[in-house]
Amino acid sequence: MVEGVESAVGLDRRVARSKDAVLSATYELMLEGGLGGVSVDEVSRRCGVAKTTIYRHWPSRAALVLDACSQMGVAAPQPDTGSLADDLRILVEGLVAELGAPGWASVLPSVIDAAERDPDIARAHASLHRTLMAPFVEAVERARQRGEVAAADEPADVVALLVGPLFYRRWFSREPLDASFVETVLSGMPGRRPRDTP
Amino acid sequence: MVEGVESAVGLDRRVARSKDAVLSATYELMLEGGLGGVSVDEVSRRCGVAKTTIYRHWPSRAALVLDACSQMGVAAPQPDTGSLADDLRILVEGLVAELGAPGWASVLPSVIDAAERDPDIARAHASLHRTLMAPFVEAVERARQRGEVAAADEPADVVALLVGPLFYRRWFSREPLDASFVETVLSGMPGRRPRDTP
Repeated sequence: MVEGVESAVGLDRRVARSKDAVLSATYELMLEGGLGGVSVDEVSRRCGVAKTTIYRHWPSRAALVLDACSQMGVAAPQPDTGSLADDLRILVEGLVAELGAPGWASVLPSVIDAAERDPDIARAHASLHRTLMAPFVEAVERARQRGEVAAADEPADVVALLVGPLFYRRWFSREPLDASFVETVLSGMPGRRPRDTP
Repeated sequence: MVEGVESAVGLDRRVARSKDAVLSATYELMLEGGLGGVSVDEVSRRCGVAKTTIYRHWPSRAALVLDACSQMGVAAPQPDTGSLADDLRILVEGLVAELGAPGWASVLPSVIDAAERDPDIARAHASLHRTLMAPFVEAVERARQRGEVAAADEPADVVALLVGPLFYRRWFSREPLDASFVETVLSGMPGRRPRDTP
């Protein structure tokens, strides 16, 4: 009985390891060539997991890509300094570092492109977006509860005004996300005006 | 002599018409399936121009796609009301309409995705981006000359703060670009604060 339980645990672990290997290989291929660069053949070659095993867990290439997309971003740790300006500075500095690194930032445009035409990818992207933005929304919600942000200010709007210009520079104008621009963006946020604007 | 000139003009017109037809078909295919949806075979079928003729003007599929990309966006007419707030309102309303319509807004993500990995596409995208943003930059430049915007405020930064949140909603959070959000974005712009903030 105990042996049976251990075997089942061992099997679960092996399955979990091979699923992780498949998702990692899928993510690597996405980093190299966007969503379009992923084929089950190449994933199988890259991670050494047989195609039949891959298809046992993901019925199609689309299902595999969706799963890899939804696991792509990791939410930043939630800062809680008691000041919105300080919380947002920590979050923005973390985000700027991610935007400049070879990671989800170079894959996201291919997800967004696919989301324009594929409702399943659009749903995976929405979930990924919520994960990435959750600590920003949470920081603004807390500041609203403290009265640092007006009750009328929607957290989603505040986040759009903060993150939108950073995304714009990374993918649209392709200008550097330098310290001076980060200050410009942060200085427009609520919770800064009363202290810092004359 | 006169006849010869007329024939040359006639030939130029025929060439121009067939090039236009090829670029229009390329753009249509991009609207339907992004950059990846374009093949010279399909372009030829769609517009009835022979592949040999297409390859005479564009040596490769990549060259054709690049040309179609760079002609994709049309700059909005330059408003010049004498007030930055009014100029920006006109430009933002035009941009929001474009972002909501089936046009370059649904193709741009595929251009940005390709630009992540292809320096030629990155150059075509940069040129397209400059075209689309030129009236915004010009409006801020004029306001700076009138003293409505501080000399220290970079027009590119002002445009990022204005356009970034709109792009964020269109492609990242996929929230509606409604009138209330447009007001929120416009109310943060320079030239509004002295008049509208207590």
